[in-house]
Amino acid sequence: MKLQFLDMGTVTSPRGFLAGAVIREGLGLGILFSEAACRAAGLFTRNQIKAASVKLSQRRLEEGRARAVVVNRGCANAGTGEKGMADAEEMAHLAATKLNLPPEEVLVASTGVIGTYLPLPQIRQAVEEVELSSEGGHEFARAILTTDRVPKEAGMTLELGGKRVVIGGVAKGAGMIHPDLATMLCFLTTDAMVEPAFLRQALKEAVDNSFNLITVDGDTSPNDTVVILANGLAGNPVLTADSPDGARFREALKEACLQLAQLIAQDGEGATRLIEVQVEGALSLEDARLAARTIASSPLVKAAVYGSDPNWGRIIAALGRSGARVEESKVELYLGQLCLFRGQPLPFDREEASRLLSRERVKFRLCLNLGEGKATSWGCDLSPEYVTINSAYTT
Amino acid sequence: MKLQFLDMGTVTSPRGFLAGAVIREGLGLGILFSEAACRAAGLFTRNQIKAASVKLSQRRLEEGRARAVVVNRGCANAGTGEKGMADAEEMAHLAATKLNLPPEEVLVASTGVIGTYLPLPQIRQAVEEVELSSEGGHEFARAILTTDRVPKEAGMTLELGGKRVVIGGVAKGAGMIHPDLATMLCFLTTDAMVEPAFLRQALKEAVDNSFNLITVDGDTSPNDTVVILANGLAGNPVLTADSPDGARFREALKEACLQLAQLIAQDGEGATRLIEVQVEGALSLEDARLAARTIASSPLVKAAVYGSDPNWGRIIAALGRSGARVEESKVELYLGQLCLFRGQPLPFDREEASRLLSRERVKFRLCLNLGEGKATSWGCDLSPEYVTINSAYTT
Repeated sequence: MKLQFLDMGTVTSPRGFLAGAVIREGLGLGILFSEAACRAAGLFTRNQIKAASVKLSQRRLEEGRARAVVVNRGCANAGTGEKGMADAEEMAHLAATKLNLPPEEVLVASTGVIGTYLPLPQIRQAVEEVELSSEGGHEFARAILTTDRVPKEAGMTLELGGKRVVIGGVAKGAGMIHPDLATMLCFLTTDAMVEPAFLRQALKEAVDNSFNLITVDGDTSPNDTVVILANGLAGNPVLTADSPDGARFREALKEACLQLAQLIAQDGEGATRLIEVQVEGALSLEDARLAARTIASSPLVKAAVYGSDPNWGRIIAALGRSGARVEESKVELYLGQLCLFRGQPLPFDREEASRLLSRERVKFRLCLNLGEGKATSWGCDLSPEYVTINSAYTT
Repeated sequence: MKLQFLDMGTVTSPRGFLAGAVIREGLGLGILFSEAACRAAGLFTRNQIKAASVKLSQRRLEEGRARAVVVNRGCANAGTGEKGMADAEEMAHLAATKLNLPPEEVLVASTGVIGTYLPLPQIRQAVEEVELSSEGGHEFARAILTTDRVPKEAGMTLELGGKRVVIGGVAKGAGMIHPDLATMLCFLTTDAMVEPAFLRQALKEAVDNSFNLITVDGDTSPNDTVVILANGLAGNPVLTADSPDGARFREALKEACLQLAQLIAQDGEGATRLIEVQVEGALSLEDARLAARTIASSPLVKAAVYGSDPNWGRIIAALGRSGARVEESKVELYLGQLCLFRGQPLPFDREEASRLLSRERVKFRLCLNLGEGKATSWGCDLSPEYVTINSAYTT
């Protein structure tokens, strides 16, 4: 059985996962819970200013176990010192009591305004009100959104060791997106049985190839979190790096992350288009990633795409400053099938170029002709609405 | 005699410098000329995609001499391959013929759209029409502007070895500003007599402390150029790194660059306010510069300033991702005199904060309390107009 995407797949699609949420003005609160014990792994922001929730979840994942996540939207609980940490512990404790779990098995995540304290009285009440169900993934996905316009959910199924295994996930993120090791918030679940070290390794690889290649605005948040819970209810033989199905699981996890990552890039604050930048022929994989990510995050490239302006010189300029090795005379630049530059400017059909720039997904391809490195990055265009949204976020 | 700023100081304020320009729809062309032989030094973009004009001027400055600069606005002559280089040489040649100089003594600079060829017929005609005069600096400054709203000029006088010495300068730049070794375009002149190695060293130091600390949008252009011409007509004893007046000359040059750099940041595309970020107590000078520059270039900080929104958490978040060493519990953040954060959020007067954020110059100060490193960076706010300008630059 090949990898199959699920219609309406979400974080509760795998067996034994329940979720629920409360959504009201100024507060969203979601709980994700596994009926069975889980192996768990997480990746977190590299920002040195870490939200209290990040520090707490990071610590709790050291043992590689967790059974629940409680998430709030509206307050990031970052830049909040010792009180922030006590509040995060309190929030985990509230969920643990409700779920009858030791607090050590509950992870916490927060997203929203930085530098304000958690609204604990409202959170206390909301935790009580949450109703968990195996259909609750969709509501959970909606509860954690901030400036996102649409929920981000994915699900897929594959056969591993004769058993049908399901992977589900939800993510949020629309601004402060320039992940370095992780993204805003992403929660992945699977009923596969996975050896902990392999689970962590597969997650790292999936994130490097997805969330770490998207960008909205170049700002890395203090709250970036990707967590995976694996409860083993599918009954497959334990997956390890060496097991025959290991590669397929890795591939499936990467696909799930890729789908969620692209949904985030597409829903960037104020965005009207998804920008895809493929870089080939770089001297190394690292160079390819650097070049692709730099171009996708250039405000000038993004603004030109917003205006459907074929101002391709900005792409070449961003490439040149990216730090990736470049030889101008060898560079080729394509917009869709249109070649715009091959060591020098080529004549091109401007109307056709503008048409390609007006599509929902705008694709640039660069051949550096220096080596074998290739990577793709995703971003979004930059609209006046981005500024409007972000000029009045707390007021 | 202390350092004195000149009213209406410009690039022709020092003795023996003439300039002139032609300004018309789509084309600006300026020529700067020294009546006497000059020592010259330059700093150029680190972007690997370099404009033909940059490559040519860089080569010509290897000998440390030049007597004229010809600059066009409208076309950057970048990403233009071999033809672009031939065109740059042709442009220098045209000016050399007019000025009766060997072409090797003429530098070239270009700014405008990347990836199109120089309009040589128009340039040929414009070079012929330019009239040089000792008052021509102001017109030269206007001729090289692209999306800049105002010309950027500076002049100052000081006494060195009993002689009155003048330093003048003009700059342009409003977008693609995130200099790495240099800025958009800046031409400095002085009638001081300066030893070539010291001239280069003083220029590097001045640029590191000024142009390299400003940012508009994080994009480094292929055309960044800072050039200084010193014709020695003031008759002072030759300045060297060891001469008693060396430090005063360095200081004066830095002041001239600082003034021009701040004018650029203030006139950033769409900008309504200058943002000044002072970082103190960093572990090192490099850390201080990194932190200050990262905060001043954060699109989310910039958008919050545009909206006078005291969303200071974004400043802490940008600090945390800057790469500079940070300990959250030691960080203090001030907006003007208002302390917003000291390891944890402090209560503050939101109305007063919004008022401070509405000033023409918005000042943030961060004390990291880790060491002695300090630096100041300048940027501008991010407005919807930035996007509007940049979404239709070539169309």
